[in-house]
Amino acid sequence: MKPFSKNQLERYPLYLRYFKELQEQGFQLAPSPAIASRLGISEELVRKDLQAVCKEKGRPRKGRDVASTIAALERFLGYGKPEHAILIGVGNLGGALLHFGGFADSGLCFDAAFDASYQVSGKQIAGKNVYPMSALPSYIKAKKVRLAVITVPSEAAQSVATLLVENGIVGIWNFAPVTLKVPKSVVVENVDLSSSLAVLFHHMKEQGGPNHW
Amino acid sequence: MKPFSKNQLERYPLYLRYFKELQEQGFQLAPSPAIASRLGISEELVRKDLQAVCKEKGRPRKGRDVASTIAALERFLGYGKPEHAILIGVGNLGGALLHFGGFADSGLCFDAAFDASYQVSGKQIAGKNVYPMSALPSYIKAKKVRLAVITVPSEAAQSVATLLVENGIVGIWNFAPVTLKVPKSVVVENVDLSSSLAVLFHHMKEQGGPNHW
Repeated sequence: MKPFSKNQLERYPLYLRYFKELQEQGFQLAPSPAIASRLGISEELVRKDLQAVCKEKGRPRKGRDVASTIAALERFLGYGKPEHAILIGVGNLGGALLHFGGFADSGLCFDAAFDASYQVSGKQIAGKNVYPMSALPSYIKAKKVRLAVITVPSEAAQSVATLLVENGIVGIWNFAPVTLKVPKSVVVENVDLSSSLAVLFHHMKEQGGPNHW
Repeated sequence: MKPFSKNQLERYPLYLRYFKELQEQGFQLAPSPAIASRLGISEELVRKDLQAVCKEKGRPRKGRDVASTIAALERFLGYGKPEHAILIGVGNLGGALLHFGGFADSGLCFDAAFDASYQVSGKQIAGKNVYPMSALPSYIKAKKVRLAVITVPSEAAQSVATLLVENGIVGIWNFAPVTLKVPKSVVVENVDLSSSLAVLFHHMKEQGGPNHW
């Protein structure tokens, strides 16, 4: 089977959200044209995406069964069994992520946070304990944590990543605007807001024409 | 010329960051193999990307001039003239974005924030005034704002987007996990953390093998 592309993987939570919306509204079948229009992509792409994760085929002209597609998407996305994670760096962004209650629905569950500053370590934020960095290695080993979220300042990100990997972390969700160097066996997913802004500004420029810039 | 792909646009801030790093370290020329290795992409892609935005060609076997490439990237990304923006929804995430000082370097500058709650409107957050939603239409018109950042809860996002568009906003940076319906002339860039997590989990699953899940 063809490996999943990044763009394709990013669409599955959007499908899931739309199917759940349809379910709440009482729909039992989801026609491809409706799905395609909602996500702003072609019907062909919708069919390919959903066939790759759901065994059941859609019924021609009627659509896909909403309930079984939701179950298949949740299974594929691993939402039944949330991944436990630690967060490193409790600044503004780190604190906001801890406070944000919605990650459990996306398969992530925060166990604890770590921070280099004595001002926050020892406290609780959004009900999660914040520990000093010195407690990190033993925590990862004791709790068998596999995933870490990095929200430290840029200049600290690489050394934190190295420490995490040395202690057994295999997945990093990186919010620091730095390209981390890690072994190939470690998965890094970057959330880079400046990249997102670059896309936005470019398209605004195209729409607005040169006179507006 | 070929239009820029989303992935390509997302790479330009990464190039800029690496070139600035090289400049700080005293390098005057950046060889393509070094750039390719740092960004984890092919040399061919590096050359295509940079040729699309810099008139000056790289010197064979020596590399690209660091200073002029930085200037070209900043011009392309519009960083010389930051776009003024308003932020709607001062919850945890909205507050974190206002506190985060780094957006000016990425071409975005917050003018003010708006919130439906009486508890926050009328206050200042990170030095920015927070106004009630009723002040939104006149503010957009008076200040000629083109860009808005949406950090309201999902259920409020569509009505906020509609209000923004009606009042002249042409670019939306959307952090609400909702596919917004807007006219084609309005640019929406979504920051969807559940999509990012879906990519991360899928690759962790591939690495770890089925026994680990």
